[in-house]
Order: sequence, then C-alpha cells, then structure tokens
Amino acid sequence: MRNLDEETITQAVLARNVDMKDRRLKEVMTSLIQHVHAFAREVRLTEEEWAAGIQFLTDVGHTCNPCRQEFILLSDTLGLSTLVTAQNHRKPQGCTEATVFGPFYVDDAPEYELGADVGNGMTGEPCYVSGQVRSITGEAVPGARLEVWQADAEGFYDVQDPERTCAQGRGTLHADDSGHFRFKSIVAECYPIPHDGPVGRMLEAMGRHPWRPAHLHFMISAPGYETLVTHVFRDGDKYLDTDAVFGVRSSLVADWVRHEAGKTPDGGESDIPYYTLNYDFVLNPGRPIHANR
Amino acid sequence: MRNLDEETITQAVLARNVDMKDRRLKEVMTSLIQHVHAFAREVRLTEEEWAAGIQFLTDVGHTCNPCRQEFILLSDTLGLSTLVTAQNHRKPQGCTEATVFGPFYVDDAPEYELGADVGNGMTGEPCYVSGQVRSITGEAVPGARLEVWQADAEGFYDVQDPERTCAQGRGTLHADDSGHFRFKSIVAECYPIPHDGPVGRMLEAMGRHPWRPAHLHFMISAPGYETLVTHVFRDGDKYLDTDAVFGVRSSLVADWVRHEAGKTPDGGESDIPYYTLNYDFVLNPGRPIHANR
Ligand SMILES: [Fe+2]
Ligand SMILES: [Fe+2]
Repeated sequence: MRNLDEETITQAVLARNVDMKDRRLKEVMTSLIQHVHAFAREVRLTEEEWAAGIQFLTDVGHTCNPCRQEFILLSDTLGLSTLVTAQNHRKPQGCTEATVFGPFYVDDAPEYELGADVGNGMTGEPCYVSGQVRSITGEAVPGARLEVWQADAEGFYDVQDPERTCAQGRGTLHADDSGHFRFKSIVAECYPIPHDGPVGRMLEAMGRHPWRPAHLHFMISAPGYETLVTHVFRDGDKYLDTDAVFGVRSSLVADWVRHEAGKTPDGGESDIPYYTLNYDFVLNPGRPIHANR
Repeated sequence: MRNLDEETITQAVLARNVDMKDRRLKEVMTSLIQHVHAFAREVRLTEEEWAAGIQFLTDVGHTCNPCRQEFILLSDTLGLSTLVTAQNHRKPQGCTEATVFGPFYVDDAPEYELGADVGNGMTGEPCYVSGQVRSITGEAVPGARLEVWQADAEGFYDVQDPERTCAQGRGTLHADDSGHFRFKSIVAECYPIPHDGPVGRMLEAMGRHPWRPAHLHFMISAPGYETLVTHVFRDGDKYLDTDAVFGVRSSLVADWVRHEAGKTPDGGESDIPYYTLNYDFVLNPGRPIHANR
C-alpha cells in the first residue's frame, strides 16, 4: 500500500473495496474507479488539467440550485443521459420511445382540467394539443396521468425566470375514460440549453452549439405501465439532426399544423393563426415505477 | 444523429467534436466521453443510479466553499490524485518524492522567520523541525521557499474552524544561505479526512475508514527547480498502510524523536517533553512552475 504509482494505484484502490457490503455498489465503484483511472492514464492528465477539472466540477456544482441542474445538463451534453435512457427502455416495437429527462421538470406542476390552457399566459403562438394514451395491445388507458412542460417563444422555461410568480407552460392533466387528452398551450420553438454557466463554456470550448430542436416534454404514467418520459419534436426544425443533448428519435417527430384565424378545436374563435398537434402515446405494460423519481 | 442507442451514442457524441480547435482538449474530451460511456454500459447503469450519481455530484459541489474542497477529497479518496501526481513527477532517483496536494493548502499563509513557531498557538505537543534543501547534485539551495501546513492535535486544520481568527499550523519560510531551515510547530497526529459530507458518506457506504497517517505538508520551490509538493509521514503510525488517500511513500516516512523536558534545539528550555524532526529535501532541477497553482 506504499509507493503506489500510476500503474499500481488502481489495484490498490480496488483492494480497499473488500469490505463493501453492497454488491451492486461494489460493482459500480469498481468499474468507475477503473475507467476514471484509465482515462487519466490514457491522456496522461497533467496536474494543471486535473486542477482545471476540479474547478470545472466545482463550478458545475455551484451552478446547481433548486431551479437549475447543471450536472444533468453536463450528462445530457456528453450523451450520458441518452445512453442511460436507451439502455433502460428497451421495449416492444410499437411503444412510444423514451428520451432524455432534461433539467427543467418540477414535480409540483399545477393540475389542469382537460382543455385548459397550460401556457397560463406564457408568450407564444397558440397551439391546441390532443391525442390518446393507449397500451401496446391497443386498448385505451383511461385516466392516464400526463405531465407536460415546455419553453416559451423565447426559449425559456418558467423556472428559468427568477421573478416568476406562477407556473407557466407546465401542468398535470388526466386523460378521459377513453384515454384521450387535450390542452391548449403555445407552439414549441427551438431553444439553447442554458449556456451562461460552466456547461455553456465547455460547449463553446468544444466548438459546439447549445441548441435543441423545438419539443414538448411529456411524462405519462398509469398503474400497471412503465412510466414514459419523452418529448414530441417539431418537424422541420433546423436542429433536429444536431440536438445539443442527442435526444431526437424519428418516431417522436410530429407535425405542428398551422391554421389561419378562425374556429378553434375547443369550439372558440381565434383572431390570429394557431397550430394544432395531435400525437398518440403507446405505453409499455408492466414496469410501473418511473426510474427518475 | 437521430435514434441513437447505447451503442451508437458514443460515436455520435465524438462526431460532434470535429469543430474543436484545441487539439489537447479534443484528446482529453474524446477519452473522457469514451470512458464515461464505457462505464455506464459496463455496469448497465440504471436511471435510479444515474439520478443518485447526479445528486451525489451536486452534493459534492454544494459542500465546496473557500475553506473546503470536496471534489479534491473525492479525487484523493478514489486514488486519482495519487495517479496524477505519480505520472507527472517521474524524476531522477535521489530526489524527494512528491505526494498528493490535499484540500487544505491556502496560498496566503503568513511569512515566518527561521526558527519561528508556525503552530501559532495550535494545540499539540511541541516539535522542532529542521533540515536542508539540496539539489540532486548535492549543493544547497539557498533561500528555497518552504510552505508548511499541518493539522492540530485533534486532527483539524485551521481552515476547518469557521471561527478561526488567524492562521495556525501553516506558514511560509525561506531557507538560509546554506539551504537550511528550522521552525517550531506541534507533533503531527493521524486524522480523519472531513467525513461529515458526501465523500464521508461514500467512504462509509464503501466500508472504508477516513483516516490518514500523521504527516506534515511541504511545498518547496526555488528558481530553476521543479516545485516539490509532498508530506513527511510519522513513522509508527497505524494508518501508514491504509492511508485513506493512498499518499504514503516509504522514502517520506521519518522518525519524530521524543525528548524529555529540558534544553531545546532553539536554545530554550521546555518543561514538558518535546519532539524533533530532521528531514532533508532534494529538488529536481529544471521544471520551475508548480503544476497545481
Ligand atoms: Fe426541453
Ligand atoms: Fe494533511
């Protein structure tokens, strides 16, 4: 245990794990230690670089607050989130695919009746969203719980505004007895992930843009089904092939249909043009607990 | 770039690196992304574990403040610091070996005259430290700058006391024209690394103790020499073979000699027993800038 060098240190650290009771923790830490060490050896990490890494992680930590999760952003931009999502959501063909959770979910979004305006005063072009929640076997999922969240026309989620007084662009709804849902919101627009912090500086140093294609987030849960965390992406967006967080799936791209001013799907009238989005979700039976909660 | 899965995501993320101007950053990020992804695939990281990891890193970040560096502690306890130190300080046989920097250095330690008491009122048994700074070729290094820091008898560094009013157990001195130095301090004792935070919880979950063998930190610099960051460890300490941060090197273990009350090396008298430590340092010519600064 004395006189360790860059070759012998790894086994010495692993040898210290003999007393670990939790076998899964042992498995995870063993792999983590080996890969962190292999990385440092492979690039012959210098002390300056190590110090810069410590400072970067510290900055990322200090940027995290109840309304901002910079470590999730880091995981998202390095593709780790997509990797973890993919390997935990292999499911039967025909189920709606999952994508990354993202850093902007909050668990106390207001409850809305079907048809309500979850935008709640958010700036943007009106959009009427509807669809059905079904099982892979085709039957409706009555009363499925839908949590939706999205950015405003300027690309900001409500939680990014320190002066916000109420939830905007997010809400919880329940599908009706036939699994159908509908709500009013605004049209999703592409937006840059928060790039005024350390992850933004990292992307800039890497020559990468911070943009995500326009999308609407959904988390859909129902007893007896695997909770679905996903987005619906807006077809035609110029960032669909260079999403900063690698989340796009072809099956999740849908058409936001533009309509001229006139009669709206909720039976009212709009004196400006509006959009509609219709998208059905297919749940996978059998794994009720959502892994990210 | 769409429909990425746990196998294709890695190449997709790396493909985004084409515009990176900084070739070294590209090399480092390429390796980092590959190893982080390989780790997540190898253990088939679940979403619960991913979320626990995000929360752990966030907690580590929130524990960092101007007086506490929890990410350095994490690096130290996982052996990364020893690895980085070792691969950056291969030097000729006969030079004093380097060891980990640790989280308790501060760069504005008070200046002391040779012979002064750097303990500055710190609790502990008196100890008189002396030695010489030499080059690998044998000649003295006149005026070498020595920064020393250590914990008190209870195992705490001054910066760990939120109510401290002055530096204790740390100071900057300069060797005399013959490279000799001497100062008074207290006897080093073994101590646990701060374990009331996330790294302490990690060690507990891993069944590892947080103790470090007794040691005295030195950073020694002089124009024309590689700056030396090291400790002198106290022979006989029960943690020499299980240092929580893997820093012990046999060549850095020295004898703290106990003396009965009486005449002391500084020409005074002690009415209680005291210790002496004599240790010489051998610098490596040619790499003046210290990598951790
Ligand atoms: Fe989003
Ligand atoms: Fe120490």
